[in-house]
Amino acid sequence: MLGKCLENVRKTIPLVHCITNYVTVNDVANVLLACGGSPIMSDEPEDVTDITSICQGLTINIGTLNQRSIESMFLAGKRANELHHPVLLDPVGAGASALRTNTAARLLQELSLCAVRGNISEIKALAQGSSTTKGVDADVADAVTDDTLDRSVAFVKEFSQKTGCIIAVTGAIDLVTDGTDCYVIRNGRPEMGRITGTGCQLSGMMAAFLAANPDSPLQAAAAAVCAMGAAGEIGWRNMQPGDGNSTYRSRIIDAICNLDGDTLEKEARYELR
Amino acid sequence: MLGKCLENVRKTIPLVHCITNYVTVNDVANVLLACGGSPIMSDEPEDVTDITSICQGLTINIGTLNQRSIESMFLAGKRANELHHPVLLDPVGAGASALRTNTAARLLQELSLCAVRGNISEIKALAQGSSTTKGVDADVADAVTDDTLDRSVAFVKEFSQKTGCIIAVTGAIDLVTDGTDCYVIRNGRPEMGRITGTGCQLSGMMAAFLAANPDSPLQAAAAAVCAMGAAGEIGWRNMQPGDGNSTYRSRIIDAICNLDGDTLEKEARYELR
Amino acid sequence: MLGKCLENVRKTIPLVHCITNYVTVNDVANVLLACGGSPIMSDEPEDVTDITSICQGLTINIGTLNQRSIESMFLAGKRANELHHPVLLDPVGAGASALRTNTAARLLQELSLCAVRGNISEIKALAQGSSTTKGVDADVADAVTDDTLDRSVAFVKEFSQKTGCIIAVTGAIDLVTDGTDCYVIRNGRPEMGRITGTGCQLSGMMAAFLAANPDSPLQAAAAAVCAMGAAGEIGWRNMQPGDGNSTYRSRIIDAICNLDGDTLEKEARYELR
Repeated sequence: MLGKCLENVRKTIPLVHCITNYVTVNDVANVLLACGGSPIMSDEPEDVTDITSICQGLTINIGTLNQRSIESMFLAGKRANELHHPVLLDPVGAGASALRTNTAARLLQELSLCAVRGNISEIKALAQGSSTTKGVDADVADAVTDDTLDRSVAFVKEFSQKTGCIIAVTGAIDLVTDGTDCYVIRNGRPEMGRITGTGCQLSGMMAAFLAANPDSPLQAAAAAVCAMGAAGEIGWRNMQPGDGNSTYRSRIIDAICNLDGDTLEKEARYELR
Repeated sequence: MLGKCLENVRKTIPLVHCITNYVTVNDVANVLLACGGSPIMSDEPEDVTDITSICQGLTINIGTLNQRSIESMFLAGKRANELHHPVLLDPVGAGASALRTNTAARLLQELSLCAVRGNISEIKALAQGSSTTKGVDADVADAVTDDTLDRSVAFVKEFSQKTGCIIAVTGAIDLVTDGTDCYVIRNGRPEMGRITGTGCQLSGMMAAFLAANPDSPLQAAAAAVCAMGAAGEIGWRNMQPGDGNSTYRSRIIDAICNLDGDTLEKEARYELR
Repeated sequence: MLGKCLENVRKTIPLVHCITNYVTVNDVANVLLACGGSPIMSDEPEDVTDITSICQGLTINIGTLNQRSIESMFLAGKRANELHHPVLLDPVGAGASALRTNTAARLLQELSLCAVRGNISEIKALAQGSSTTKGVDADVADAVTDDTLDRSVAFVKEFSQKTGCIIAVTGAIDLVTDGTDCYVIRNGRPEMGRITGTGCQLSGMMAAFLAANPDSPLQAAAAAVCAMGAAGEIGWRNMQPGDGNSTYRSRIIDAICNLDGDTLEKEARYELR
């Protein structure tokens, strides 16, 4: 099933409108191409409605938000909603500033979002209006571990039910839920935290998976998470002496590029709760 | 002749002012350095006139245009015109939104452009005011193939004569014309389409070639196209098992970095029509 | 001592707020992660005060400045000053445009800067209000060489005394001074000039070194310069046939990622003046 979700991306080549931060935007574009989708970036209010209209999905990432791009997020989101395109929110740094927390909360309220993907601190900030967010990385105190797994799963299911969105929390253990079922995913490598933007890349890629699999959004979101984690593992196996985080970054995108459905099925490590 | 054009870039190190999208800007800078030029980026209206004044060429890429950068494109373009610097337009996504189509059309009308480089859908949108552009990639229906070659050559020659610009259309077959002669170029690899920004990189590099070869702009533009395509082929030969689109991206820039005039002459595959 | 400065970054993981250009921002983020710090980017006036407040250091790079980001530079800088965070200025292109020269001068005047890092042309533009800056690269006429070393050291010491900042001038020979002592550093490779953004990366990294070593800012700044230069040398040793500037860029960040204090001590080549 997860492998099929990837194959559907490669088959339908969904065009994904990305309003995303300028730090990791190039990697987001390349990972979208790697997984079989096609990216287009636009964040000018006068441009975004037209651009979203020719796409099949929208990802909104608030990583380097500004007043202009915030306006564009709402305009594009509303148009995507009219067209029934899946809209994904990546609330980068929610909890770290009032503008980020409030913008993410307003997007969640005013748009009909298909999915929200973030680290646990960002999702908590969004759910509870407060957090111990340390910048754009999750706080250790919030981490999803085997010890906190039961209550973490309960938390994401409840937030998913309340919002009607698929909630994807990524970290050492990833959780993806539609409020009823929860994928508990154990792919990935801790060294992925030494690269900027693996989360942003996943958000871009997840929008493509959602667009290509309109009838099974939970599986599509879980497949994207497993694909990113599996690519982190495959990329790591290809590391040579002297390689570091910059080469690892390329290796992960390369692994997505070479990933097929069968390999994804074989590499995915998850349980359903 | 084409090899000489590259050598002139390495000899004169033209400084190229780039107003370009934030998706591929880093690759544009690195490919300009790789080919022997020097990049400077500036898109603030209060800054661009000064910056263009110390440069030898200007590339305008509308990939992530906004109201501020659009104003800068006109200001920089007019100043570059006054100084007789070559100005190149890359109409990214023309045909995909009204703002892009109109901005590209206005730049073509109000500035004296040396060259326009885009995919066939973008160039058609610019020439005809409409197109079937699919995002930032060319539509299959527009593609330049052996079957459509005669009328494609006629189309670009006519558009070149009408505008007075060198027109460079890149795709599986590349066309570069000054309205009289047309280079039909068959370098490159289809896998280049899996990397974001090879077109943007080529536009940046072409501005350097035009600046370094003021007396032979057609050959300069063709040399840049052949160099990019040859680099795509050389980079592909250097790919290892497990490599994907991210490593390929680096391999292409590396190949430009190592390219000399003799190799370019040897690798270039073109006919004149 | 220099090795200890690096180890303190890895131990304390300083969060560095970067207001930096969009050309090299991804590399700045990855090099900050590589050296053991943590990056966060924000350039919206309504966002930067909150973001700076949760950080331990701030780097201000004017490479692609605009009216919005300039306002953010002052807001963030003032907040960072209130919190006694080290603030570093990278005056990219000072001397190349009035806006850049004036903005850098105003930042130097209105903020309490811990350090200024630039090439010799930029630093001269800032010190003297004029220069022969060629774009964002240093002019040959300004270069610090063995012939000009005595007067270059005197110049940077005097500018440091006048401003109260640590001054770091990087080039073939690097100078880092607090007005009393001057590190004359001979690490690095000329090929680093073929990559965009090694200066920007160093500025981001230096802010992390300053934040992690509050009691020895001169040594921290010198350690960052030596680390970047040593990484340039180590990365070069790892180059293979066919590699070019794009792979070299990755190799340098990788080398920072793998650098430890002992290796930095061993690789650092400097004298004190």
